Amino acid sequence: MTFMAKEILILITNDDGIYAPGILHLKHALKSLGTVIVVAPLVEKSAVGHAITLSDPLRVMEVERDGTFFGYAVNGTPSDCVKLGSRCILKRKPDLVVSGINQGPNTATNIIYSGTVSAAAEGAIMGIPSIAVSIASFTKKEFGFAAKFTRQLAQLVLQKGLPAGTLLNVNVPAVPENEIKGVVVTRQGKGRYEEAFDKRIDPNNRVYYWLTGKRMILDHGDDIDDPVVMQNKISITPIHYDLTDYSFLEELKTWHLPNP
Amino acid sequence: MTFMAKEILILITNDDGIYAPGILHLKHALKSLGTVIVVAPLVEKSAVGHAITLSDPLRVMEVERDGTFFGYAVNGTPSDCVKLGSRCILKRKPDLVVSGINQGPNTATNIIYSGTVSAAAEGAIMGIPSIAVSIASFTKKEFGFAAKFTRQLAQLVLQKGLPAGTLLNVNVPAVPENEIKGVVVTRQGKGRYEEAFDKRIDPNNRVYYWLTGKRMILDHGDDIDDPVVMQNKISITPIHYDLTDYSFLEELKTWHLPNP
Repeated sequence: MTFMAKEILILITNDDGIYAPGILHLKHALKSLGTVIVVAPLVEKSAVGHAITLSDPLRVMEVERDGTFFGYAVNGTPSDCVKLGSRCILKRKPDLVVSGINQGPNTATNIIYSGTVSAAAEGAIMGIPSIAVSIASFTKKEFGFAAKFTRQLAQLVLQKGLPAGTLLNVNVPAVPENEIKGVVVTRQGKGRYEEAFDKRIDPNNRVYYWLTGKRMILDHGDDIDDPVVMQNKISITPIHYDLTDYSFLEELKTWHLPNP
Repeated sequence: MTFMAKEILILITNDDGIYAPGILHLKHALKSLGTVIVVAPLVEKSAVGHAITLSDPLRVMEVERDGTFFGYAVNGTPSDCVKLGSRCILKRKPDLVVSGINQGPNTATNIIYSGTVSAAAEGAIMGIPSIAVSIASFTKKEFGFAAKFTRQLAQLVLQKGLPAGTLLNVNVPAVPENEIKGVVVTRQGKGRYEEAFDKRIDPNNRVYYWLTGKRMILDHGDDIDDPVVMQNKISITPIHYDLTDYSFLEELKTWHLPNP
């Protein structure tokens, strides 16, 4: 048995909630790499983006799964979990944040709504190497290979580190290992939801709306997230949060802006 | 009186809620440019990021201010307001989305949490020229000049358009017009909140936490949002949602990624 001068500390979270199947697979897969602490939303928090909880107090609950201690549930968002986990629940800042495994792809423009990606972004902004992992199906429970791949990738990230502020957004096809065709470093596509609203009348004769929509894949190309996943390849996109549109910045300087 | 073949249609929203002072100033300032429709959250929705409401029905209420019809309140987030406003409340897609005027700066890394900026992002993603406006004080109610400047900028944007997917993030110093020192096209800074949690015990002896923190301005430079605003200049940052970290992408390709 080797003596480890410093134990590796990994914080796991998600946006499907602490009782979701994906986070169970993730915890089991990563436990051979170090101490794995789960801090995840008590209930599903999909499509919350970078929401953080300012106007309500946060509470932490210890949660069991399969009769043993599984992790800490927070009555907040995935971003809250990473902040509160790193600052208050773990004894020190973790060496790695892994968010997932999300049920459903997090690709293209839609990642801005993703709690899974936002949690990893929170880690990246705190200077912690961070990974967001999703399987590209809303229904198929094919977490097994994604979990195994995440362990291999996490090991590499622990060795090599990531630039401060940058995370890896990983989308794994929801198929068994023998159907996976490879792994590609990609850029984020331009696809988005074409949303619609389902207008209904409640029993009290009042109008209400449900947000609904259709995923539009607008990209073609062997280096873009959605098309890569559709070829049964794993997509890894390095993302950061400098949102400046540098290509338009120079043109904007030539505008005759109102000048007080 | 000139005949307008097509009336300009402007959607206004915010994240401070439909009863906030900033949105009142904004509506008054923009009404000379066309038909202005307010669709805003019923209650304050700060720090919600790009959150959208999938698990609850949305409702729309007509709201009066000063005894006359002011706009439509939605029981959702700023992003919901832009989606629902554009698709269901307005007769057609608006020509411009303006979000604000926010009480408090939206600069640097912190814009990822901003409902104000996210609402404008929603517009930009739908292909509508969009502007987010904030005044750089959490307390001073200096909306007058910011509203006037926004009208001038909005007029320019209506004339020239913006690239699809790009919005303008505007931060105005919270001072009277005669103290404003100019206007600068900027890039997004790297400043962020250094968060902390205030741990307390409730009357039932249970622990709870309040998220708190300190704004850290980490940037220096005459072309970065925070330092520009601190010089009493208006900052205009063009932002978009291609989050790909292109500078790291090539390096990541050289990694020996696990390859199934």
